[in-house]
Amino acid sequence: MTIVVKIGGEVIGSGEAALLAADLRVLIDGGARVAIVHGGGPQATALQKQLGIETKQIAGRRVTDAATLDVMKMVLAGKLNVDLCAALTAAGISAVGLHGASAQVVRATRRPPKVYAGAGDTPVDMGFVGDVSGFNLALLETLWGAGHVPVIACLGADAEGGVFNINADMVGNQLAAALKAERLFLVTSAPGVLRDINDPTSRLPKLTQAEARAAIADGTVTGGMIPKLEEAMAVINQGVGAIHILGKLGPGDLVRAVREPGSVGTTLLS
Amino acid sequence: MTIVVKIGGEVIGSGEAALLAADLRVLIDGGARVAIVHGGGPQATALQKQLGIETKQIAGRRVTDAATLDVMKMVLAGKLNVDLCAALTAAGISAVGLHGASAQVVRATRRPPKVYAGAGDTPVDMGFVGDVSGFNLALLETLWGAGHVPVIACLGADAEGGVFNINADMVGNQLAAALKAERLFLVTSAPGVLRDINDPTSRLPKLTQAEARAAIADGTVTGGMIPKLEEAMAVINQGVGAIHILGKLGPGDLVRAVREPGSVGTTLLS
Repeated sequence: MTIVVKIGGEVIGSGEAALLAADLRVLIDGGARVAIVHGGGPQATALQKQLGIETKQIAGRRVTDAATLDVMKMVLAGKLNVDLCAALTAAGISAVGLHGASAQVVRATRRPPKVYAGAGDTPVDMGFVGDVSGFNLALLETLWGAGHVPVIACLGADAEGGVFNINADMVGNQLAAALKAERLFLVTSAPGVLRDINDPTSRLPKLTQAEARAAIADGTVTGGMIPKLEEAMAVINQGVGAIHILGKLGPGDLVRAVREPGSVGTTLLS
Repeated sequence: MTIVVKIGGEVIGSGEAALLAADLRVLIDGGARVAIVHGGGPQATALQKQLGIETKQIAGRRVTDAATLDVMKMVLAGKLNVDLCAALTAAGISAVGLHGASAQVVRATRRPPKVYAGAGDTPVDMGFVGDVSGFNLALLETLWGAGHVPVIACLGADAEGGVFNINADMVGNQLAAALKAERLFLVTSAPGVLRDINDPTSRLPKLTQAEARAAIADGTVTGGMIPKLEEAMAVINQGVGAIHILGKLGPGDLVRAVREPGSVGTTLLS
């Protein structure tokens, strides 16, 4: 079984890493190959503030000038990747920290100016923001073959030396599709898809594509969960087995989700 | 032939990376296995200044509190490692960026307080400064087997999740010794060992250990070159074939140094 775990910056911490490691140990011992992808948006925003760099977002995406790109490199590939790998190592996982420019493990192209919903009619140039164009899957195979867990800081690189800021959900989704992964975990701050966003007990355990579309259409799903769900559903069609949207991890959550889809968070099924 | 290249932060730049890549291509095509280790001291000092963190050095080493360690993570494993890998990639080298916490490729232990020459009689606690205790050579073998060049940001990690700031020369030297590398390059700002530090043409092309010791004893070698030379000589005794101290790279310098020791920089021989 191939498993991709995407962890949002909002839920990365050493406690989280220990819980993650314990679950990964069980899954790997059961024969799974695991790749981890992580973001770091809130931490990048905090460093921008410290450095006096204005944070500018359009349609929920970070406009990335050269100084902001450097911040992303420092926070994602530097601080967060190092700390996450160190914490996973301490918990017995052989975590190999990488970034997109590590042998172009995440290949990307710079996004041309385009019109964003809710951001006017003029095409917007997001700067050094990239879209995924492929992955160096051979590198992942090499690392898996030697018993490692690749931990990828969410940057992309092109063949000409360009480095790009890429949305971590996008990398997680696309990587799962490229691997035809049986499972994709999206670990975020919300405990799955909720019928009532103010009531954590109103979790929808399972959603088919049709149900997910209906939940968006009837207003059950709102805000940032809409694009998350839409992008995730797109890769279900591309061979990803099931997608688990989980909130801040509790002990055993990943293993439980794999063994009993629907038992924790929200599971998207084709 | 196994080659370790240590690049100091003072000479890392995209121009340098292109020259390095061209030479590595020739050496790799000739059958060499290459690992790169890089520092980033000046860049770390610059970021500390930007963040209002005081830079404190004792005996030429950075006292590393938690905030300073985060700066090292961000600058070394983040900005510099990403940029160096991207530049090497653009020049046709499959550079896999790693940091010490990537599967503990650089194992380290925290340095206990000790007395430093010229820094008083009281033992000094350098904070999160580490000493090398080993390497994950198997990870390097795995990457070499698949045609990659590991590019290691100079941090060390222990098995308990600790991350440490380590001197890059030390990592380069110790890694070359652990690999019994035929060649170690120390790329720095000085064009080798000079008889007269103000005269770049006074380069000493080759030094045996006895000659190097004499050059230190008679005052020919001064300043930061003394510990660099002493630490390098120590690993010549541990099975490193030859050590080349090179200044800012010119086209073909690495290849020339390998083929004709003494033709560029200073070559230390056992």
